[in-house]
Amino acid sequence: MKIILLSGGSGKRLWPLSNGARSKQFFKVLQDEHGNSESMMQRIYRQIRLSCPGTEVIIAAGEAQSDSIRRQIGSEAETVFEPSGRHTYPAILLSVAWLLDKRQIEDTEVIAVLPVDTYVEQGYFEKLTEMESALADSGADVCLLGVQPTYPSEKYGYIMGESMPDRPYRQVRTYTEKPDLATARRLVSEGGRWNGGVFVFRASFVKALIEKEVGQVSFDRLYALYDRLPVNSFDYEVIEKNTSLVYIPYDGEWNDLGTWNTLTEKMQEPDGGFVVRGEDCRNTHVINELEIPVVALGLNDMVVVASADGILVSDKHASSYMGRYVEQIDNRPMYEKRQWGEYKVLDFVQCRSGKESSLTKHMHVEPGRSLSYQMHHLRDEIWTIIDGKGLFLLNGEIREVVRGDVLYIPKMCRHGMASTEGVDFIEVQLGTELVEADIERFPWDWSEQLGR
Amino acid sequence: MKIILLSGGSGKRLWPLSNGARSKQFFKVLQDEHGNSESMMQRIYRQIRLSCPGTEVIIAAGEAQSDSIRRQIGSEAETVFEPSGRHTYPAILLSVAWLLDKRQIEDTEVIAVLPVDTYVEQGYFEKLTEMESALADSGADVCLLGVQPTYPSEKYGYIMGESMPDRPYRQVRTYTEKPDLATARRLVSEGGRWNGGVFVFRASFVKALIEKEVGQVSFDRLYALYDRLPVNSFDYEVIEKNTSLVYIPYDGEWNDLGTWNTLTEKMQEPDGGFVVRGEDCRNTHVINELEIPVVALGLNDMVVVASADGILVSDKHASSYMGRYVEQIDNRPMYEKRQWGEYKVLDFVQCRSGKESSLTKHMHVEPGRSLSYQMHHLRDEIWTIIDGKGLFLLNGEIREVVRGDVLYIPKMCRHGMASTEGVDFIEVQLGTELVEADIERFPWDWSEQLGR
Repeated sequence: MKIILLSGGSGKRLWPLSNGARSKQFFKVLQDEHGNSESMMQRIYRQIRLSCPGTEVIIAAGEAQSDSIRRQIGSEAETVFEPSGRHTYPAILLSVAWLLDKRQIEDTEVIAVLPVDTYVEQGYFEKLTEMESALADSGADVCLLGVQPTYPSEKYGYIMGESMPDRPYRQVRTYTEKPDLATARRLVSEGGRWNGGVFVFRASFVKALIEKEVGQVSFDRLYALYDRLPVNSFDYEVIEKNTSLVYIPYDGEWNDLGTWNTLTEKMQEPDGGFVVRGEDCRNTHVINELEIPVVALGLNDMVVVASADGILVSDKHASSYMGRYVEQIDNRPMYEKRQWGEYKVLDFVQCRSGKESSLTKHMHVEPGRSLSYQMHHLRDEIWTIIDGKGLFLLNGEIREVVRGDVLYIPKMCRHGMASTEGVDFIEVQLGTELVEADIERFPWDWSEQLGR
Repeated sequence: MKIILLSGGSGKRLWPLSNGARSKQFFKVLQDEHGNSESMMQRIYRQIRLSCPGTEVIIAAGEAQSDSIRRQIGSEAETVFEPSGRHTYPAILLSVAWLLDKRQIEDTEVIAVLPVDTYVEQGYFEKLTEMESALADSGADVCLLGVQPTYPSEKYGYIMGESMPDRPYRQVRTYTEKPDLATARRLVSEGGRWNGGVFVFRASFVKALIEKEVGQVSFDRLYALYDRLPVNSFDYEVIEKNTSLVYIPYDGEWNDLGTWNTLTEKMQEPDGGFVVRGEDCRNTHVINELEIPVVALGLNDMVVVASADGILVSDKHASSYMGRYVEQIDNRPMYEKRQWGEYKVLDFVQCRSGKESSLTKHMHVEPGRSLSYQMHHLRDEIWTIIDGKGLFLLNGEIREVVRGDVLYIPKMCRHGMASTEGVDFIEVQLGTELVEADIERFPWDWSEQLGR
């Protein structure tokens, strides 16, 4: 068996910590049995290793997660990077194409797909073996995990099943993805189960889907044509339409950590960052990533989250409905982790005189990393080095820069920065259209200077 | 009669909008009968003008409030600036010394002292005439305003009185400043009244106090020795010890706007700034001065205030007890309005290498204003002009600077900036101790360049 761990999705419902460039699965807010903090990704990977020590794990993720995965998991797990985020159906096809094409696995190999954002007990992973056996015994296309519902939720898929005499698995009779509340209530009362997002199938099953989409089982071709695949979940695209499904019931602990309401329940500490809390707060979590204090007084069942992107103040239950409110917010990301390091937007000013503006950032380049060699058409930049040391590249010339140096970069000048020990600078942008998109990149090889 | 309007005090209980450099009485969160927004200062000054059109008003304030007063009230009211904030007893002595010494008023002149942070109906000001008559008729030292209590508060002084046959005023029998809750309950049940902070007395009464403190009635002497006066309220220092007191009862609307709980009740709009609110919020006020959004979901009876200095999330009732929590916070002000304009701290970094650090500010110099001519011992500064135009002074030489100019100011260099049209710049400080106190000031006369 191979395990594909799905680590896509930015999680709008965990705004303002989760955005395109930062994903919930890497927040170290959980704890293991020794009290050490760990992320969702670290927890589930540790649990897989414990129950399935020999099994190969492939992580399907966005390119932006590359550094986080390397930092948290190391390089033991193979990672398949999606060219863009298009939901679980394309992600599963791409990962299976990688296994078939690049790893040359057999068509008969069994593959288990697991979501990364569930909080479960160890017994969950032991179900994988039962699911593999059910698949073999039943000859079904896919074996699901039927989670015991705890309330009539509109967020999940519901499985109605039929017991099979002398078999641990059951036949799926009907499958209903995200029903309305009334239907969810009826399905729960009739013994329905939630689809836990675990899919066990033979490689050949998804191979046929890949061939249908791009004509042949080629990872490179699927990668190149990725943007033509439907943006859809595997649940809607495959499971809801399929009649050859079985499932294994699971009655153990199962929590979807996709909302603040559920995530805070599993959090190690009620507060994070600079927080002053009144003794009169109850069942309240305050997470503050800003440098200014958050004072919380007299709060009940609340979650308060402050980050560079915004501030959430919500009743815990109401927080699950935040998606549509966050969609109204269209401001640029104020903080991003990148391959080369991270930046924070500090200030933005529209000039009194008219259409010119100014944007100020704190830039941090990590040791051994480099910014791309780039040029802007619509802005000048002034960089003031405030910490560390770097190699500054301007129109093909490299020079060493240190704290206190000021670099003036007029528009249309090619520039770059690399650093062996890490460097921080304040970047002041001056121009007419200060957007991330005003960037033209050029190749440059820093391997000599960075020693790699 | 002369009126002294006490406009001191920064109001810790209105953190994070109120701090040493910004005072609650200037927030334009109220509205007049035409729906125009106005501040506490504007409201009370307008009300005084209406009820007492000919009466001279003196505003006792901190120097930092000078610009706000000029902007909101104009130059019609005379302002007496306290050299430092030392509570109401020194402030009242200083204002009366100014009237006696600089304005040469008679000892028999009647003076009324009013607090700026009460929200009252017009009838409140008509009581001033009754208080003046009561003072004359009774021969008492001070006439107070006895406000009808609305609940047993621990925050106020309680007056127990005796009716005088055929007189509209009453004799004060006992006076209890800030009792505990049990005592407050008893006093309210026995018909006690709150001291509304209005004091009416003859100039001669406070003249004696001034003579006691500094030997003679000299404004300049009192100003020079101001730091030796007790830091105390007029209530504790004078009223509680005095036995010659009368009061006029007042049953009209009276609200102390000193806490978020009371201030939000009088606010014009429930939200200010970039706020996304769920329809499920009730009796909740959200004020956001930051550029990032605040999302508020499912809140009841809450106040949320976000400013550069911090974020308050509080149950409205609990907000009155915030003083002791805010005292724990000792971070530098992140935003200050000054005589010359304003600044915002954008970023602070402790260098990885050791004791050096870096601080980044957005500075705004208002049109026709100038920064003091100054020098730092422990830091270099780099200024990048991002908007407007200024006159930059470095070691005695002036040159014009515009958007895009970068100015390097090494430590021990004298520098200044003036602007006729207003100028904005990003200031990066680099040094070992980045504190406001590292500043040596030198005289410089900009009157020629600024045309005044």
